[in-house]
Amino acid sequence: MEKNIFALKGDICYSKNLKELQTMEQGLLVCKEGMVEGVFQELPIEYKDIEVKDYGKKLIIPGLVDLHMHAPQYTYRGLHMDLELLEWLNSYTFPAEAKYKDEEYARVTYGRFVDRMVKSATTRACIFATVHVEGTLILMDLLEKAGMHTMVGKLNMDRNAPDYLREVSWEQSAADTRRWIEEAKKRFENNVPMLTPRFTPSCSDEIMAELKKIQVEYGLPFQSHLSENSGEIEWVKELCPYAKYYGQAYSHFGLFGGDTPTVMAHCIYSCEEEIQDMKEQEVYIAHCPESNMNVVAGIAPVRKYLQEGLKVGLGSDVAGGATENLFTAMMHAIQVSKLRWRLVDDTLAPLTVPEVFYMATKGGGELFGKVGSFEEGYEFDAVILDDSHIPDQDGLTIEERLERFIYLNQEADVKAKYIAGTQVL
Amino acid sequence: MEKNIFALKGDICYSKNLKELQTMEQGLLVCKEGMVEGVFQELPIEYKDIEVKDYGKKLIIPGLVDLHMHAPQYTYRGLHMDLELLEWLNSYTFPAEAKYKDEEYARVTYGRFVDRMVKSATTRACIFATVHVEGTLILMDLLEKAGMHTMVGKLNMDRNAPDYLREVSWEQSAADTRRWIEEAKKRFENNVPMLTPRFTPSCSDEIMAELKKIQVEYGLPFQSHLSENSGEIEWVKELCPYAKYYGQAYSHFGLFGGDTPTVMAHCIYSCEEEIQDMKEQEVYIAHCPESNMNVVAGIAPVRKYLQEGLKVGLGSDVAGGATENLFTAMMHAIQVSKLRWRLVDDTLAPLTVPEVFYMATKGGGELFGKVGSFEEGYEFDAVILDDSHIPDQDGLTIEERLERFIYLNQEADVKAKYIAGTQVL
Repeated sequence: MEKNIFALKGDICYSKNLKELQTMEQGLLVCKEGMVEGVFQELPIEYKDIEVKDYGKKLIIPGLVDLHMHAPQYTYRGLHMDLELLEWLNSYTFPAEAKYKDEEYARVTYGRFVDRMVKSATTRACIFATVHVEGTLILMDLLEKAGMHTMVGKLNMDRNAPDYLREVSWEQSAADTRRWIEEAKKRFENNVPMLTPRFTPSCSDEIMAELKKIQVEYGLPFQSHLSENSGEIEWVKELCPYAKYYGQAYSHFGLFGGDTPTVMAHCIYSCEEEIQDMKEQEVYIAHCPESNMNVVAGIAPVRKYLQEGLKVGLGSDVAGGATENLFTAMMHAIQVSKLRWRLVDDTLAPLTVPEVFYMATKGGGELFGKVGSFEEGYEFDAVILDDSHIPDQDGLTIEERLERFIYLNQEADVKAKYIAGTQVL
Repeated sequence: MEKNIFALKGDICYSKNLKELQTMEQGLLVCKEGMVEGVFQELPIEYKDIEVKDYGKKLIIPGLVDLHMHAPQYTYRGLHMDLELLEWLNSYTFPAEAKYKDEEYARVTYGRFVDRMVKSATTRACIFATVHVEGTLILMDLLEKAGMHTMVGKLNMDRNAPDYLREVSWEQSAADTRRWIEEAKKRFENNVPMLTPRFTPSCSDEIMAELKKIQVEYGLPFQSHLSENSGEIEWVKELCPYAKYYGQAYSHFGLFGGDTPTVMAHCIYSCEEEIQDMKEQEVYIAHCPESNMNVVAGIAPVRKYLQEGLKVGLGSDVAGGATENLFTAMMHAIQVSKLRWRLVDDTLAPLTVPEVFYMATKGGGELFGKVGSFEEGYEFDAVILDDSHIPDQDGLTIEERLERFIYLNQEADVKAKYIAGTQVL
């Protein structure tokens, strides 16, 4: 199908806002030049001759947006889930990431990762790669060829990492970062560089200051980790005496939102000042509920963030999360919010299906522009889901079918996928 | 394949005990007359001519045991997960269960449930049906024909339920229970009646006393719910002034373990005396981790139960849990134990893969006799799992493959299933 003009027909569901889903049975979703024209019960007269792809009773939803994942960790997802964050990094993550120095290894394993990403319901993602320039370019190349639209980060790590992975100096880290950006900007249209210091403990003040210069020079988005674990938070306090709270270890260098589109992963233990800072600077929070459990981090107070009007999306956090499947992330987001309500703070109500769906589509999508909805003028990201293997669906509304799909979906249920108007699956 | 004598070949994994898995690559699991003869690297001379079914690199594990599930709730699994227990029962569960008065409806919907059970990795289960005698017999008939081995309960509910579902008197409830048992004993060999008062709030003292008589008369096992929710616990206190704690509402009638094989579902808020009572009376605890989250119940202190030497198995609790998949239950059991450790009590360490696997096999299996292991003399329950769709498996041990399978399995991965030596899938 061309990027030109066409319609998809099926049972359509998307978020109006945090509280409400918009649904239409046997609706027609019109795409023109890669953008959504609208959702119609009958095709308006001006579209009467366009091609209509009929998906029957399948669900049609906006593509999902993964605000946080680690591509090199895909090789060991679902393994070694018996350690806390800092031990886990040293025992498994760092050795695994070091392998991406080998370009052939990167090509093969990133190839498998990208293949799964294409087959998933995810259309947009913020991805951590490794410190390696060539490996990161290989990943971006594979994503570009597969039709994905992502932001990818070559990591910066110039301290507190094993010799085999640590960059030799902040100067080298900065030079590599520039080389990677120049190359990526030349070669890729839809997969763009995102500045990615791994997290404060891995990055000297010098490289942080330099990343700000690079950020201004190239106008790039920014991502990192924030307030995931109390050991990590204490460590940042020691490392950055100028920072009253963890977020200031970024804002001290002008790398905490504002003019820079910024994603901070986790934000489980953010203090009140950090929360207000994120609100004012419009920082996106990547809530990663499976990782909250698997690396024994705790549960982020997402209800509070939503009440305060912060920007929140969902992240799979592969491999802190075992799966790239964002429906699983929606399920876990609801489940951990219930436990938090029960066990930690009963003033913060559990999350609902419309809320987690919003976060996984329009909430995170906003980082990419007009993405994550079927309202007119949004980029045409759509996935087609076959829920016919789930029995006892008679008489269910589309919203009810969506709820069940969140709990009961299977990988093979994603039948087709369009990104910015182009069919990629 | 006949029940006689044969071997399965593949990558074998089963529990020795709570802490250790026993694994063998390309092992041979020998079945004789429905029982396990042993696991061998090479076939002993006396078996050299038996039929060997070679499953290649697939995993072979004992069949899984589901200690708690509600068959009539299968129709709405993954729906309406926005309420707490008591509201959820009134709004969704009771109306759904009332439909099973219609035998044709029961036949069709239980048919779908049994079909999924056969295709799952579960070989044994303790199942709640409804109050209806005919509907419960239909379920047992379908399970028997499908080759499953289960314990099934027609429910008793003679108080605190809506008119359309409540039994009209304890006398009628008892008479129906007797009629159901007589019929079931005549007709079914492998699917046996289990006495099942829904929970204390649904059952008068009179029917409880009568159930004890029936229990003695027929020598039947017993199941119910225990200490799931604080509202429920308070209600039981009001209803049963003779009970110092919830468990005594059963033990008061002699229905709390001892000579009676007994399963209590949930046990999230059991007090110290209740725990000691369960230990002494050898009550099985059905830990249902997904339900702990979905109906906002809390997290059962399973580590404590294991330390104290209580008997613990896993339950899917369909539809408090959305899926009958016990691998999902294993994942959730690990995950919620981590959150409990982090958020509630850091003296109770998270559960491990060998521990949750033990609970899902040998731990719950013991209720059924020698079930849930490949040690000699155990009933031959085995499932064959294809994990070949999970990439990056090179060099992994069987134990590591099992861990990943828990997080990344798909329904279609169950390729074959044997129960007591008979192939049912």
